Amino acid sequence: MKQYPTAKATRLTMKHPGDLSALDQEIIEGRIKSADIVAIIGKTEGNGGVNDFTRGYFTQSLMLLLSKYLDATIEELAEKIPCVLSGGTEGVLSPHYVVLTRSQTEIPPASGDKALALGVAMTRPIEAWEIGTETHWKLTLEAVKRAMEDAQISNPDDVSFVQLKCPCFTVAAAKQAVAAGKSLCSGDPNRAMALSRVAGAWGVALALGELSEDQLSAEAMLSDYSLFSNRASVSSGVEVSAVEVIVLGNSPDWSGHYQIDATSMVDALDLDAVLKLRETSKAQTSEVCGVLVKCEPDRRGQVRGFRHTMLDDTDINAQRHIRGALGGLVASVFGDGRIFVSGGAEHQGPDGGGLVAVITKRP
Amino acid sequence: MKQYPTAKATRLTMKHPGDLSALDQEIIEGRIKSADIVAIIGKTEGNGGVNDFTRGYFTQSLMLLLSKYLDATIEELAEKIPCVLSGGTEGVLSPHYVVLTRSQTEIPPASGDKALALGVAMTRPIEAWEIGTETHWKLTLEAVKRAMEDAQISNPDDVSFVQLKCPCFTVAAAKQAVAAGKSLCSGDPNRAMALSRVAGAWGVALALGELSEDQLSAEAMLSDYSLFSNRASVSSGVEVSAVEVIVLGNSPDWSGHYQIDATSMVDALDLDAVLKLRETSKAQTSEVCGVLVKCEPDRRGQVRGFRHTMLDDTDINAQRHIRGALGGLVASVFGDGRIFVSGGAEHQGPDGGGLVAVITKRP
Amino acid sequence: MKQYPTAKATRLTMKHPGDLSALDQEIIEGRIKSADIVAIIGKTEGNGGVNDFTRGYFTQSLMLLLSKYLDATIEELAEKIPCVLSGGTEGVLSPHYVVLTRSQTEIPPASGDKALALGVAMTRPIEAWEIGTETHWKLTLEAVKRAMEDAQISNPDDVSFVQLKCPCFTVAAAKQAVAAGKSLCSGDPNRAMALSRVAGAWGVALALGELSEDQLSAEAMLSDYSLFSNRASVSSGVEVSAVEVIVLGNSPDWSGHYQIDATSMVDALDLDAVLKLRETSKAQTSEVCGVLVKCEPDRRGQVRGFRHTMLDDTDINAQRHIRGALGGLVASVFGDGRIFVSGGAEHQGPDGGGLVAVITKRP
Amino acid sequence: MKQYPTAKATRLTMKHPGDLSALDQEIIEGRIKSADIVAIIGKTEGNGGVNDFTRGYFTQSLMLLLSKYLDATIEELAEKIPCVLSGGTEGVLSPHYVVLTRSQTEIPPASGDKALALGVAMTRPIEAWEIGTETHWKLTLEAVKRAMEDAQISNPDDVSFVQLKCPCFTVAAAKQAVAAGKSLCSGDPNRAMALSRVAGAWGVALALGELSEDQLSAEAMLSDYSLFSNRASVSSGVEVSAVEVIVLGNSPDWSGHYQIDATSMVDALDLDAVLKLRETSKAQTSEVCGVLVKCEPDRRGQVRGFRHTMLDDTDINAQRHIRGALGGLVASVFGDGRIFVSGGAEHQGPDGGGLVAVITKRP
Repeated sequence: MKQYPTAKATRLTMKHPGDLSALDQEIIEGRIKSADIVAIIGKTEGNGGVNDFTRGYFTQSLMLLLSKYLDATIEELAEKIPCVLSGGTEGVLSPHYVVLTRSQTEIPPASGDKALALGVAMTRPIEAWEIGTETHWKLTLEAVKRAMEDAQISNPDDVSFVQLKCPCFTVAAAKQAVAAGKSLCSGDPNRAMALSRVAGAWGVALALGELSEDQLSAEAMLSDYSLFSNRASVSSGVEVSAVEVIVLGNSPDWSGHYQIDATSMVDALDLDAVLKLRETSKAQTSEVCGVLVKCEPDRRGQVRGFRHTMLDDTDINAQRHIRGALGGLVASVFGDGRIFVSGGAEHQGPDGGGLVAVITKRP
Repeated sequence: MKQYPTAKATRLTMKHPGDLSALDQEIIEGRIKSADIVAIIGKTEGNGGVNDFTRGYFTQSLMLLLSKYLDATIEELAEKIPCVLSGGTEGVLSPHYVVLTRSQTEIPPASGDKALALGVAMTRPIEAWEIGTETHWKLTLEAVKRAMEDAQISNPDDVSFVQLKCPCFTVAAAKQAVAAGKSLCSGDPNRAMALSRVAGAWGVALALGELSEDQLSAEAMLSDYSLFSNRASVSSGVEVSAVEVIVLGNSPDWSGHYQIDATSMVDALDLDAVLKLRETSKAQTSEVCGVLVKCEPDRRGQVRGFRHTMLDDTDINAQRHIRGALGGLVASVFGDGRIFVSGGAEHQGPDGGGLVAVITKRP
Repeated sequence: MKQYPTAKATRLTMKHPGDLSALDQEIIEGRIKSADIVAIIGKTEGNGGVNDFTRGYFTQSLMLLLSKYLDATIEELAEKIPCVLSGGTEGVLSPHYVVLTRSQTEIPPASGDKALALGVAMTRPIEAWEIGTETHWKLTLEAVKRAMEDAQISNPDDVSFVQLKCPCFTVAAAKQAVAAGKSLCSGDPNRAMALSRVAGAWGVALALGELSEDQLSAEAMLSDYSLFSNRASVSSGVEVSAVEVIVLGNSPDWSGHYQIDATSMVDALDLDAVLKLRETSKAQTSEVCGVLVKCEPDRRGQVRGFRHTMLDDTDINAQRHIRGALGGLVASVFGDGRIFVSGGAEHQGPDGGGLVAVITKRP
Repeated sequence: MKQYPTAKATRLTMKHPGDLSALDQEIIEGRIKSADIVAIIGKTEGNGGVNDFTRGYFTQSLMLLLSKYLDATIEELAEKIPCVLSGGTEGVLSPHYVVLTRSQTEIPPASGDKALALGVAMTRPIEAWEIGTETHWKLTLEAVKRAMEDAQISNPDDVSFVQLKCPCFTVAAAKQAVAAGKSLCSGDPNRAMALSRVAGAWGVALALGELSEDQLSAEAMLSDYSLFSNRASVSSGVEVSAVEVIVLGNSPDWSGHYQIDATSMVDALDLDAVLKLRETSKAQTSEVCGVLVKCEPDRRGQVRGFRHTMLDDTDINAQRHIRGALGGLVASVFGDGRIFVSGGAEHQGPDGGGLVAVITKRP
């Protein structure tokens, strides 16, 4: 009998970053099959910075659980299943994770309808000297296209949210590259991490037709903030060596009751955009299975003409500030603190604004 | 010719906690008369805790400015003009202050209309052993009634927001009291400060008929959170020895274009309450001259059934968390980061919820 | 052939809280036998507070490693091998851990000499209503005595350092106990944790003859700070249900080149005490294998007559302040940042002072 | 009768950053003449970062006090009397300030002896495009020489400590400069502040013969850390437009019982250097009137071969970490928490090390 792909998003809570009991329960009671898990996107209660180890702890605990069910080691699973975590549950935000699964169904897609579709892909390893360069965004562009194929989404407009994990060089790799006569995008590791995110975002923008190659240049990175993607959400870190891509969208070829809708916010006070998204996605009458937000404190030091103090605070990191504020806004719209809010949104949405996507399940 | 009282609220920005240049400009250009200033309510960019000195710095700078115009020393002015400051401009919040002035006008109140009215009063000094006790709330009750008279508000329903500053004993005063055989409400200074706020809130609740005396007891303080005022906003500190009261409401006997509206939020996600307040107050078509919020992280560790992490965070104080989240919500509704958001809201609004008041000027 | 007990302390570094590669290397290269590991005491780079998950992450990673070598699950190992961690490597402190092992040797103890000896013991589970009470300190007293026997130390003067992990009730257990008509030592979880540490410290003091039972009372807890142990280092948490005891001292019946020396500091500036300990322990000519410090910000708000600001800082937790300061002092004396510094030292050493122990290996 | 210059250092405590009552008392009781005050160096209890307003609050309060005694406005006094403040009293550090006064005496200097001498000078205003450049260090060199003349110190070896305040451009000034076709030392304000400190430090090193002009270049700034001054302590900020110089040393031409001694620490654990300084300065038998420390977290991420975590901590600023650790060490040596410890020590002492100076009064 003919089979159709179908995707599911399950939002679960944790008691602490090492607690995967909710997923274990889902597996034990048969609601989630461990082999169907494609990716996990979650929010842990760390500080979201370099020294946030709640992400590593959650990932180790997750892979430890899955290794009980799947015939693979913790290390093998960590390479196979992308686990995208943002640390920091400021304010009303609640620690949680969204499990994305993919399986086959005999129920054909409803005619004229689109359902949640998801696809993953990976570039080849990016060399230290390629990070944050044209090579980086070109390889990302290709990987996003392959992830779209994997998701059977041919129309870029049907892509709602592209989550990337981009590599970053370690100090050791940087030294080796320099010794070998190569030049790096930046000698400053924080700037290199940011440039890696920009290259990733631009790869997405190219794949979705938001930007064209002739607009892009090394000089425009972290400088011309009008060159952004409205659907890219990028994190970067030394724990990956290639770009990992998760494409979320809606496809007429997929079956199921789930859908994803997205919008961008022009600034950190753009309540209207989020209220409209609630309307569009019918979030009030459907079950909300995941809300994904990407944001950044406005670099110009103001929101709607009034000074903010996020960038000059020695006590609280600026990303923690903006996550708390945006989290308060978006959580109030959806009536739920289980919102994935991630900072570090250079060239991902308008400067000082953000992206919001919501996954719903129709009743 | 007959004169009528009229009140005005002017919202000004600061570049740093010692910057009063905006108020100086208002005075120089004649829009504010220094002698008309009744009270100031503001938000400075400190941490809002015991070691937040931005409040003292702003107050000193304010009184230094006013002493240039009024025939009084800095110390005399500090005793005369209540300056209520909340430290901490988390997230999108913007440092600012609202100058409340009161003057006389020949224009009579519009018939059938009510305008912004304000009154102030003060209790006698509260002794160390009276703080946080029945005496404290009874004296507050009387002072609120006198402030209502001062504001010419006879109907308690016309009171929208009562801001109090309550005294707290120093370690030295506590020692003296104990040596004199007196017992204190608590030996723990933080608990004593909280009990002082509760006694203040209950004084307001009694004056406005929200609670009756037989409901109140020392045992119910910080324990039965159903006993709250919906219109009290209380801070406490060692810098005052009496309870200072500012009553804000609307009165048929006052003239002018300003009005105040208020509501309470059932929890930290209660967007609907704030949207309704925006509607009621016609904030979208009027000029907003001040927004006042009081809030508290939910003591039960959850918001709408999901765990929050505010109370267990060793890195960021819980009050900073909730101010950032509520600030993000309320600022997005009014499209402006200049929101006064203050924590420490025990028995001021429902547990885990908050109070919001907005002062508008009709076009 | 006759066998004699012998103890060893190995100090290892970590790259992050999930990195146990240094221990793995020791095991692979045969310097440490996994079956000999009795306990681990370490310092991870978290914040040391309730929301410090680096301790859980390290413990999980440690047990995951040991489960590769020993025929036991992660859970079984976690119950068997005490892993005492203090989060927070403020200032010059360096993340590290000391692995304590115990084995048998044919080499008899040198006559007239004492060598490092260690013993462990555990009380029966402490019920929620027993925590922080006389029962708690009496059970601890017995357990310390058993741990001393295990260490073959009969003279209490030969005990240098007693590390305890004391239980604390969860909110759920507290509710159950109250429902069953039991009363708890305190309704405030933070105070209950502190009382649990005091009861533990007093159990040690009784076992070592530092205090006698008639001196102790519930009233004196967290009140009469002259009642302290000079050799107890206590942590408390919900992760244990019984009191876990590790006794470290020197015994004439043990063989080996290791020894432990200890002292107490009268206040946070007591450099002389630490310099003398360096002298006594011959730390400058021996290999230092572990330095253990317990300390607390002075509750009276002063150090040697001058105000400190640790207790009133809303930005940085007081325990982080004192660990950074004491860490700077002790690390400078031993010329090494790998110092275990733990706060929460109520009734463990003089108020505002601390304990320091050093394990050395003679050349 | 012949008059000789004499200097005095008085160390005073504060209850909070707005409390100058101790200085007021000194003036009232005649121990300090307000007109003799040359400079003030102090430590306030802020966070030491951009948003530390305790420095501005203290300065305003100081000038407010002095304006009561001297015929000058607050603004005039602020331009005339350098007030160098470092925010952040981490760990055992105690808020305090050292008042440096200069007067004339009829008592001639003891033959063969040197006494504390101090001199001040100022460069012309430094233009935005000159900050952090060769012009900046050349102008500083000249100003240090003038301050040495003012202090009557001809031998550079007699200079112990040179405190500078260097200007930094505001965003507005930067824009203007760029619009006028000028190029700035850096577009990044934090880097520009650091470069300003380096240029200042190099000006001192040139004046004292520690470095020669041909060793210096723009490329070596923040890169070749072997090019440092052992006696410069530099802060930078937008509140000054010229370089302010305070030279502290010992001169055979000055009279009095005060002296200053200084040393450098090779790293953050260099207890020996501080113990030797205590010896040299006879601090244990004299009255200590001020201890001045400059330090920096080691950029290489290690102290004596072991990893520190200061540079990667999102919760606590790296400068707060190192101040707490060095403060703990130095305060323990002098038995007093009133130590001025300032970070931001680029090219001021060896990388990862620091400078320490102590002012004593012979009995």
